[in-house]
Amino acid sequence: MRGFDPAAGVLEQAVALGAVDDPCGSSAEALQGADTAFVAAPVGALPAVLDEVLGAAGEQCVVTDVGSTKRVVVEGRDDPRFVGGHPLAGAETAGVAYARADLFEGATWYLTPAAKTAGTLFERLHRTIAGYGARPVAIDAAAHDRLMASVSHLPHVLANVLVGQAAAALADEDERLPAAGPSFRDATRVAGANDAIWTDIYLANRDAVVERIDETVRRLADVRDALTTGDARRVTEWNAAARTARRQLLERELAGGPVHELRASVPNQPGVVARLALELGRAGIDINDMALYPSSDMRDGVVALWIAGDAAANRAEALVSQLGYPVARP
Amino acid sequence: MRGFDPAAGVLEQAVALGAVDDPCGSSAEALQGADTAFVAAPVGALPAVLDEVLGAAGEQCVVTDVGSTKRVVVEGRDDPRFVGGHPLAGAETAGVAYARADLFEGATWYLTPAAKTAGTLFERLHRTIAGYGARPVAIDAAAHDRLMASVSHLPHVLANVLVGQAAAALADEDERLPAAGPSFRDATRVAGANDAIWTDIYLANRDAVVERIDETVRRLADVRDALTTGDARRVTEWNAAARTARRQLLERELAGGPVHELRASVPNQPGVVARLALELGRAGIDINDMALYPSSDMRDGVVALWIAGDAAANRAEALVSQLGYPVARP
Repeated sequence: MRGFDPAAGVLEQAVALGAVDDPCGSSAEALQGADTAFVAAPVGALPAVLDEVLGAAGEQCVVTDVGSTKRVVVEGRDDPRFVGGHPLAGAETAGVAYARADLFEGATWYLTPAAKTAGTLFERLHRTIAGYGARPVAIDAAAHDRLMASVSHLPHVLANVLVGQAAAALADEDERLPAAGPSFRDATRVAGANDAIWTDIYLANRDAVVERIDETVRRLADVRDALTTGDARRVTEWNAAARTARRQLLERELAGGPVHELRASVPNQPGVVARLALELGRAGIDINDMALYPSSDMRDGVVALWIAGDAAANRAEALVSQLGYPVARP
Repeated sequence: MRGFDPAAGVLEQAVALGAVDDPCGSSAEALQGADTAFVAAPVGALPAVLDEVLGAAGEQCVVTDVGSTKRVVVEGRDDPRFVGGHPLAGAETAGVAYARADLFEGATWYLTPAAKTAGTLFERLHRTIAGYGARPVAIDAAAHDRLMASVSHLPHVLANVLVGQAAAALADEDERLPAAGPSFRDATRVAGANDAIWTDIYLANRDAVVERIDETVRRLADVRDALTTGDARRVTEWNAAARTARRQLLERELAGGPVHELRASVPNQPGVVARLALELGRAGIDINDMALYPSSDMRDGVVALWIAGDAAANRAEALVSQLGYPVARP
């Protein structure tokens, strides 16, 4: 693993920690002969750094990033070598000092292949990431950003709002935070997260975040109405619906089971692998692993997919067949 | 410990678990000769049950409850034997099956003495609760309800809103909840909490909850505005303010230190002990323990207070002196 970082001392630390074997003096040097490039930079700086890396990377080098929002890097960057990426790993901490060999173990790692993405490069990246112990999930860039707005950016916004509100309220009452307020503590653990990262995230994904805020305000207006009218049945129904929603979210998340191999015969065309991965990702089906086997004349090939769970594998088989690609189970 | 419960089988279970030694056939029977009565019922049913218990309890029996909102029980119930109570302990689970000997260990236990509360009865209740290992904190009933709206009821409302919104968004995208979404998971852990408890809580405290919801909406409008105008400096300042607020809340919570004894000489009048406890509570000073020593002619007496932390003890001494009660340190 070669690495480059423009900040003083970072590369030395990376080498000391075993995160980088071979420190380089520039990204161009690090990219010489590379087959995969991971670009990590604040979201605001990513587009420029990605363009620089794509300029220096070889034709068979897949380039990806690890930014928390994806539309801002995917739009206008339709290079067949580029696949947006977002591993859901790490914590509020940032920097190489927090490097760990098991950082990505079991983590969802979103990939946003586009129509022009080269299938062989996407497959290699997918396999590399699965090799880190992560769970690669293909997703459309805009869907990724809306999803992150719902499950990450909005919770961060609300944590900030809650903590500000509570501090003001406690000051008004001259009270301190009670020692046992688990709901508050849980809800505000991420309040005031790292500015350097989060200002960029909020701004890069502001369309989706603003949409989510507007929906929150609409939903709060509903609850407020139920409360002011004193409608116990409506309050109970609202609360029960939240319980149901939570259970459904957790159940979907815990889905799994024995792993099945599916072999889809596909034409050797750009976008086929991305399309397959996206269709399955959209249906909530994880591809645990993936391999490409081109035919000798390179006119068609086989994509092997490994899917966990009987039901998921059956759904995947049906979906891939519907796309017009014959599926076999070896 | 005697106990009564109107539901079939509960008392037997309480005896089997060691939570009750002596099961009784009615609350009147359980109250015979009792010096302290704890009333546990859903918030909606509490006022009627409390009146029944106060009707059956003896003159020297202090009566308290464990409901999550306090104005609804304190207002219009100005019996000198009644002190509203709210231990911050337990979980989403309810019922005697979850009884534990250490349930109150270290837990904040709010008490809402009123002007008419008998000092001797309040002191006895305070001591009993401290004896359970809890941390009794005196607070005005309305301030308690506003505080709970900020640090508990609003986080519950937002958890419900978040989970409903995310479920809808994930369904729209045909996605599942990513395996690593700590901010979301933390923020929604309490979503859809026990209906039987929470519908009552939301409705009993609806004035304060609606106020908090309105403030949340105002604060969301501010963030929304900073995002739509793309004002990075404003977004950073907003996020940094949340970080400061969170740190302040945690620092106040962790305050502590060596325990000091203060002895205040007070007139033997109704309301003196409640006034002392409330003033210190309002200033964020915990009374770790408390004892009353009436003079032999019962015309005045000494209230001994144990306060943790040098700074807190000094502030307590100053406050009690300002109330006109001479303070000594034995």
